[in-house]
Amino acid sequence: MEHLQINEKRLWGRLDELAQIGAMPGTQGNSRLALTNEDGQARDLVVSWMRELGMEVTIDGIGNIVGLWKGPTTSPSLLPVMTGSHIDTVRSGGRFDGNLGVLAGLEVIQTIAEQGLSTEHPIAVGVFTGEEGARFAPDMIGSLVYVGGLDLDTALNTIGFDGERLGDELEGIGYSGTAPCPGIAPKAFVELHIEQGPVLETDGIDIGAVENVQGISWTELTIEGQSNHAGTTPMDMRRDAGYVASKISTFVREIATHIGGAQVGTVGKIDLHPNLVNVVASKATMTVDLRNTSGEILQEAENNLEEFCKEIANEENVVITSKSLARFEPVEFNEDLVDVVARISNKLGFSTQRITSGAGHDAQMLARVCPSAMIFVPSKDGLSHNPAEYTSLEELTAGANVLLHTLLEVAGGCHE
Amino acid sequence: MEHLQINEKRLWGRLDELAQIGAMPGTQGNSRLALTNEDGQARDLVVSWMRELGMEVTIDGIGNIVGLWKGPTTSPSLLPVMTGSHIDTVRSGGRFDGNLGVLAGLEVIQTIAEQGLSTEHPIAVGVFTGEEGARFAPDMIGSLVYVGGLDLDTALNTIGFDGERLGDELEGIGYSGTAPCPGIAPKAFVELHIEQGPVLETDGIDIGAVENVQGISWTELTIEGQSNHAGTTPMDMRRDAGYVASKISTFVREIATHIGGAQVGTVGKIDLHPNLVNVVASKATMTVDLRNTSGEILQEAENNLEEFCKEIANEENVVITSKSLARFEPVEFNEDLVDVVARISNKLGFSTQRITSGAGHDAQMLARVCPSAMIFVPSKDGLSHNPAEYTSLEELTAGANVLLHTLLEVAGGCHE
Repeated sequence: MEHLQINEKRLWGRLDELAQIGAMPGTQGNSRLALTNEDGQARDLVVSWMRELGMEVTIDGIGNIVGLWKGPTTSPSLLPVMTGSHIDTVRSGGRFDGNLGVLAGLEVIQTIAEQGLSTEHPIAVGVFTGEEGARFAPDMIGSLVYVGGLDLDTALNTIGFDGERLGDELEGIGYSGTAPCPGIAPKAFVELHIEQGPVLETDGIDIGAVENVQGISWTELTIEGQSNHAGTTPMDMRRDAGYVASKISTFVREIATHIGGAQVGTVGKIDLHPNLVNVVASKATMTVDLRNTSGEILQEAENNLEEFCKEIANEENVVITSKSLARFEPVEFNEDLVDVVARISNKLGFSTQRITSGAGHDAQMLARVCPSAMIFVPSKDGLSHNPAEYTSLEELTAGANVLLHTLLEVAGGCHE
Repeated sequence: MEHLQINEKRLWGRLDELAQIGAMPGTQGNSRLALTNEDGQARDLVVSWMRELGMEVTIDGIGNIVGLWKGPTTSPSLLPVMTGSHIDTVRSGGRFDGNLGVLAGLEVIQTIAEQGLSTEHPIAVGVFTGEEGARFAPDMIGSLVYVGGLDLDTALNTIGFDGERLGDELEGIGYSGTAPCPGIAPKAFVELHIEQGPVLETDGIDIGAVENVQGISWTELTIEGQSNHAGTTPMDMRRDAGYVASKISTFVREIATHIGGAQVGTVGKIDLHPNLVNVVASKATMTVDLRNTSGEILQEAENNLEEFCKEIANEENVVITSKSLARFEPVEFNEDLVDVVARISNKLGFSTQRITSGAGHDAQMLARVCPSAMIFVPSKDGLSHNPAEYTSLEELTAGANVLLHTLLEVAGGCHE
């Protein structure tokens, strides 16, 4: 049983086939923002694979896809053990982020099925809507709705950064389903994912047993000043929204370096209006992404930002309004389940390390309703959210095998 | 003769009629970027007015419109005295910037004609292409080509901020003409314009006799870093193009406040890529607008910027490339002609002050080939490049009357 392995070529083949949808020419990357036509095509492909494997496919009101595999001998009355992730990407993303977790789930089921094995508990593979948050905030919106953390109507009425309504876009690609939200709480949830950071590679470790997730705070700031002529307006008479946005952006770096430790801070999005060379900007919209493993320190970072905004609004005679786009407390995964992952990884001969996730993941939402954990594999140069994102086939295979044996143990040995 | 006055209602009526083209709903402002359909319609309207006034209309290769009025008794062999300005606007602009200079020119001609007066020299009204530079850089491109400062082919091949080619857009609105570039150097050029700054209003002055124009330096900076995950990338491993753009933007303010005096500096345009909340920006494009009345100090400001870019590119491990979008030395207008403007303004009973233009104007291009000067009228709250730009009818009328008598003196009393 210990020697059972997934088929690495088949896993790689599915990853490659999925990556053809929304492929970015000249790169290995993907552009498949949530609920775009590309996302719809990718969903169709994954659903077709689930059906080929004899899985029962349901779609819920927020478009989460759940493929349920019962196998030949499993008692259908037991709660499923769930794995899965997402297949949406950021605008210029990689081919592994999310996709690995979904396709490794399918690969695990195919491996179990073709060996004629079965598990007591059914195994489910979830494909959660809009994990990236790159089109609709908050991120992880699909799994958040799945666990009842956000009501369906509010989620459907979310307006994306492109001005489109989530519910309309979901209808547009034909993935507005009828399965109820919140969904059934599984017996346990285990997600395989690339690390998206440099820790495993730097430390030369094969497998990360993820024990917790950083808290995330996303804020959108709107700065209203006054547009004016860039040549004729004395510096001290300006109400320059663009200058204020830049000051805030550099202050976010200061927050992160001043607090230090696990604190990170990013301004990834700035839009000026009218955005012309010779006009003082009347308006700026920007986002601030703050993360920390400590909820308390994250709050301190948020307070620092708020304080600074007040000061500079006053100094520069602009109006700053703030809107929370996403706010998730740090999450601790289930200790027992993390132990299972670490033990199995070691048993399979992989170097293993407990690790913190810097990114948000669907698993942290599932952790609200069932024991959850994650398996990380290394990311080359720590790169992610980048077409150059890369994890070798050997590393991916190691992760998928840890997932296989973890699911077998959790689904096979436990009775209702 | 001193009591001759323009018809203020007619001037206001034409300003209002022209402002209906590209009107911004809910404001008094205009959005009429160079060589858009709106610019084309506005040109058609102005040309129809020129023809109604019996002017001979020519269009040159860069789309400059020149209406020539010879009157009943003028010797056609004498060089024309020229006035005029532009009718393109920034994306969210006002109704007076540029338009006033063109329509006051027509009003002056109509006033002279209906009084049965004539001038020795013909009077020409120029409508210069793309003065704002809000779509095609450099600004003042039409008058620059008119005076031979830029060859026609280079100008036609200019690519706008929206990716369109100037020559194609000119053809598209039917204003690619056959009159030669460079055009004929007039006997003199006098342009009436709103101040676009707060000086006249603050000092309670009716008329500014413009004696010089600030030098202008526009630079486009492209910053290339590396996109990465905002949650998992340690702060010290980032190559964040967005952060660097913000640092440069705040440094531009420092340049201006440190140098002081007439120095201004503006970052009005910043574009991040991929511009997402949770992705460290891989690329930023931004513009820097620096101006000073001293060419030497302007050069110092440019050097400061260049030095800073080198330092920060090194510190933050990004690549910064720099491209000059426009570079004009400060301009001194013709002293004698400035004296004429000031004397006539005083004689008409207006409070008058010599003033520096902070903005670039077509007159500074014409100054390369003939004696040139400008007449400024106040801008409410110093606002311009803003739909709220406003100058009262009384103030506009004062400026148009100074233009009338200045043109009469220069065109009437001078022999070839």
